[in-house]
Amino acid sequence: MSEVYAARRTRLRERCNAGGSAAALVSRPANVRYLAGAAPHGAVLLLGKTEDLLVCSGPRDDRQADGVRPDDSLPVRALPGPGGDPAVAATGLAAAQGAESLATEDHHLTVVRHRAMRSVAPRLRLTDLGQAVEQLRVVKDEEEISCLRIGAEIADQALGELLESILVGRTERHLALELERRLVDHGADGPAFSTSVGTGPNSGRRGHRPTDRRVEEGDFLSVCLGATYRGYRCEIGRTFVIGTSPADWQIELYDLVFSAQRAGREALAPGAACRDVDRAARQALDCAGYAENLPTLTGHGVGLEIDEDPQLAPAAMGKLDACVPVTVEPGVHLPGRGGVRIDDTLVVRPEADGGPELLTITTKELLAL
Amino acid sequence: MSEVYAARRTRLRERCNAGGSAAALVSRPANVRYLAGAAPHGAVLLLGKTEDLLVCSGPRDDRQADGVRPDDSLPVRALPGPGGDPAVAATGLAAAQGAESLATEDHHLTVVRHRAMRSVAPRLRLTDLGQAVEQLRVVKDEEEISCLRIGAEIADQALGELLESILVGRTERHLALELERRLVDHGADGPAFSTSVGTGPNSGRRGHRPTDRRVEEGDFLSVCLGATYRGYRCEIGRTFVIGTSPADWQIELYDLVFSAQRAGREALAPGAACRDVDRAARQALDCAGYAENLPTLTGHGVGLEIDEDPQLAPAAMGKLDACVPVTVEPGVHLPGRGGVRIDDTLVVRPEADGGPELLTITTKELLAL
Repeated sequence: MSEVYAARRTRLRERCNAGGSAAALVSRPANVRYLAGAAPHGAVLLLGKTEDLLVCSGPRDDRQADGVRPDDSLPVRALPGPGGDPAVAATGLAAAQGAESLATEDHHLTVVRHRAMRSVAPRLRLTDLGQAVEQLRVVKDEEEISCLRIGAEIADQALGELLESILVGRTERHLALELERRLVDHGADGPAFSTSVGTGPNSGRRGHRPTDRRVEEGDFLSVCLGATYRGYRCEIGRTFVIGTSPADWQIELYDLVFSAQRAGREALAPGAACRDVDRAARQALDCAGYAENLPTLTGHGVGLEIDEDPQLAPAAMGKLDACVPVTVEPGVHLPGRGGVRIDDTLVVRPEADGGPELLTITTKELLAL
Repeated sequence: MSEVYAARRTRLRERCNAGGSAAALVSRPANVRYLAGAAPHGAVLLLGKTEDLLVCSGPRDDRQADGVRPDDSLPVRALPGPGGDPAVAATGLAAAQGAESLATEDHHLTVVRHRAMRSVAPRLRLTDLGQAVEQLRVVKDEEEISCLRIGAEIADQALGELLESILVGRTERHLALELERRLVDHGADGPAFSTSVGTGPNSGRRGHRPTDRRVEEGDFLSVCLGATYRGYRCEIGRTFVIGTSPADWQIELYDLVFSAQRAGREALAPGAACRDVDRAARQALDCAGYAENLPTLTGHGVGLEIDEDPQLAPAAMGKLDACVPVTVEPGVHLPGRGGVRIDDTLVVRPEADGGPELLTITTKELLAL
């Protein structure tokens, strides 16, 4: 794996050099992990003028806190005592290597840290690296996609088992905790994000935090969960009805969201504009008069973080590439009544390779449980 | 409750005025919650020249995402569309109110946000509010302490129930998830931090992330968990032995850590220097030759965040006040063998009131399970 990380660092270095900076400091944890193989708590990565270094704080024990080891080929420098800031130390090291400028992640560093970095090396010119690493992360290699695929399988399994159990009378909180336990049972590092379970009037709300409301006959039940596997995070969301026969309004709303989500999935292709995919997923819902009840986005990239570029939203810029994993997750929430959300993780693939690859394969039929 | 939040904002305003700033912008979520009663996702609090405002992003639905409502007496301003930054909007509002300077939380704001705030109001002088709100949060009122007390009871209950179950053969991950489920069963908002369960060679490591290692006869088992109750976070840690008779080295190490932890607890008093409390907890371990195996701190404040001021550490400045809740958590980890950690949450109280109030009351005898 070591070559993978070295190659990623080389690509970043090329971008920095093209931007006029001989050195870069990466501080955002997911970016550090992407380039160094692991992100020990507080660690930063220096792409130096003469040498790359992973600069860590704290005792050696903490170095594997996230359960993975950094790339062996990367020298590690640990701060001697407690309380130091690796970003400040790395800035000093960059200056000592003779760098004249250092590109930093200004969207991640706080003003106080940036000030401390400036004062430790007053002659070093600090420039903004911007989201260069996030941009490198958008297109995944097959190894990354395989982690997402395994994570999706785990989430499918956890969800499938839940559906076989008795649901009426249990609280949203309990169902969410049970799902998280099952994710871990099946080999996840942990949940990819806080599991959302919404019943009755809470169903269909994006990011709903589970409450003590209990599942009742006739409810919509919507569930959104994901597994983290080797650091990679996927997402699946489904909505069910509780009881033998859904009401007419439930069937209509479900069919509508289902067709919207299918339209979104079918719009995924290399070269498709992100806003066009969003429009495809949104159109049927807009036309049915739910424009007010829609979320601000209908999908987003996933990877080492659960919410990555690209965004599928009306004002999104840019186009999709092959090997970009995204969610497609339109939904409608009617205040006081509840709603429907259907959410899949897919990988953008060219038509010649069979089109978008669906990672989360749990059925999207309207199940009555 | 509304008066409580208004009184806190008045205290902060007095500090700002004394520092020469007529307006302040609070962005760190725990600080927003402390002053406004709730911290909807992304919301910031403007203490303006003429009016205080809670500036929120996103749709109304998100406003109660953490399950609590903001102080009713505080006007709420929501951004019109998606994608805006409430901190930037609030900066514009501060300027529109005629403020000449605005104190901001430079330890929380990123360089990019700060830059956007500067450019929306170029004539407004931005100064550093520093950790003014964190300092206000150190001493708790009885309402806050009562939330911590209930949280500690919940954690004690969850831990007590675990001890009654069969442990041998179960993995660290499972035990951690079961503890988190029990916290929620007993009324917690959720865990206060990621529950840590360490067995055998992993026992006694601060912040150990649970693995798939199973509990074995003869192991040390150390557990660290906490409940969040109405936003307030407590912490308890205990170490047990598995099987009928602990080995001699286990008894010796346990007695040593126990006496160190007791010395730390007994040193808690209004006016005591933080570093003296740390030294009290550290001394016995140092003398026994474990100086190398000790953590960098032996305790810390708790409240709306799990790791607050004060720090109990060798280089810590400052003294304790009455009504400051802190953890006392010395431990020793011997690489390859495991170790012991004992962790309580207590409230500093004067001698006349009975001395430090122990919130986490699970026994600290060495239990063989």
